Amino acid sequence: MRKVDPVKHEQKRGEILGAAIRCFIKDGFRGASTTDICTEAGISPGHLYHYFPSKEAIIEAMIDLGLAHAAERFGKIIEADDVIEALLVDIEDNSLRFRPAQLLNLDGLAEAARNPEFAKIIERHTAAVRRMWSDFLRRAQEQGRVDSGLDPDATANILIALIDGSRAMPIRNPKLDIRQSAEHLRTMLVRFLSPPEAQSAASKPRHQRPSRPLKLVRKR
Amino acid sequence: MRKVDPVKHEQKRGEILGAAIRCFIKDGFRGASTTDICTEAGISPGHLYHYFPSKEAIIEAMIDLGLAHAAERFGKIIEADDVIEALLVDIEDNSLRFRPAQLLNLDGLAEAARNPEFAKIIERHTAAVRRMWSDFLRRAQEQGRVDSGLDPDATANILIALIDGSRAMPIRNPKLDIRQSAEHLRTMLVRFLSPPEAQSAASKPRHQRPSRPLKLVRKR
Repeated sequence: MRKVDPVKHEQKRGEILGAAIRCFIKDGFRGASTTDICTEAGISPGHLYHYFPSKEAIIEAMIDLGLAHAAERFGKIIEADDVIEALLVDIEDNSLRFRPAQLLNLDGLAEAARNPEFAKIIERHTAAVRRMWSDFLRRAQEQGRVDSGLDPDATANILIALIDGSRAMPIRNPKLDIRQSAEHLRTMLVRFLSPPEAQSAASKPRHQRPSRPLKLVRKR
Repeated sequence: MRKVDPVKHEQKRGEILGAAIRCFIKDGFRGASTTDICTEAGISPGHLYHYFPSKEAIIEAMIDLGLAHAAERFGKIIEADDVIEALLVDIEDNSLRFRPAQLLNLDGLAEAARNPEFAKIIERHTAAVRRMWSDFLRRAQEQGRVDSGLDPDATANILIALIDGSRAMPIRNPKLDIRQSAEHLRTMLVRFLSPPEAQSAASKPRHQRPSRPLKLVRKR
């Protein structure tokens, strides 16, 4: 048996994953076949199965990568002075500006509604993201920054829905005013999440309040 | 040339549309071919083109049907005494409870991000729905029921995003607590949309307020 160099093996897995993502963006989870992925990655099917036993295994690895990325972004949001502000900047950067990878989210949801195997993958992914959100919300509630009357899990589900929906915004509206949309999302989130005693301050849309200057439009 | 009976023609178009929707739910807009649609409808391809010149024409007709249905629902929401309550009941019935037709929404968004022809269809559909929402919001602002500081078009986009996202909720969470989710969505919408002078009343989650009994769980 051939000896496996773990570094090279990991590197090749990463290359195949990249090729698979390009195929899924182009033709969807259902449309892209393992043959397409092999062609894109420049390997033979026998070679592919040395790295991933199935298309599902590729998708699982892709989702784990996405979760690791989400956890990293979460870490940054939670560390910020103004968590809602940090969250909005993240939504603006990763949802309201369309990126091809967002397709995978829409496509994955559609596929989950059709395919029970895929539904399990999406359920597991959602549970992991929900845990991050509800831990965050619980901590923010303890600190008095988020209304303690809200249930952390139910609120987490709604925030995930809001992010799913905001990903559809640039697709539905090719001329979307990103800044104005982010402003209105901010107004909604601040009013929703703020503790009752802070509601009067949160009650005016931010552009009507004498507040610190907007930081939303950033250089990239 | 054969004489066309307009009633029979319309009826046949409706049958083909129904067959196409079943095919799209099963295999997606991209996956379902006109051959599949003909097989499902029990007609020949030549026969199909007598009713619809292309798959795109079928999708256009399907979207017009969806818009007519949305306009009807809107009419009811706008007539209600409590518009936010009526909106929530609609979201609970049509989004939080999963129905196979919701797949078409997710699938259509994914396809729009891939196919410029499809993107135009979704843009036209979104513009029509946004017009309904912003007309509604403007009227509610004039009546002092919605914060006049919110831009009607931007707010409409966010409400559409929220509905898109809420359609993903039962897919992401097979054990979704629909009632609790609707409660939290209500809290968010009431806090977001209420005029500033009504914010203190809206500041407590509804289940903590001494209010009229919940009407969300209805007999169907």
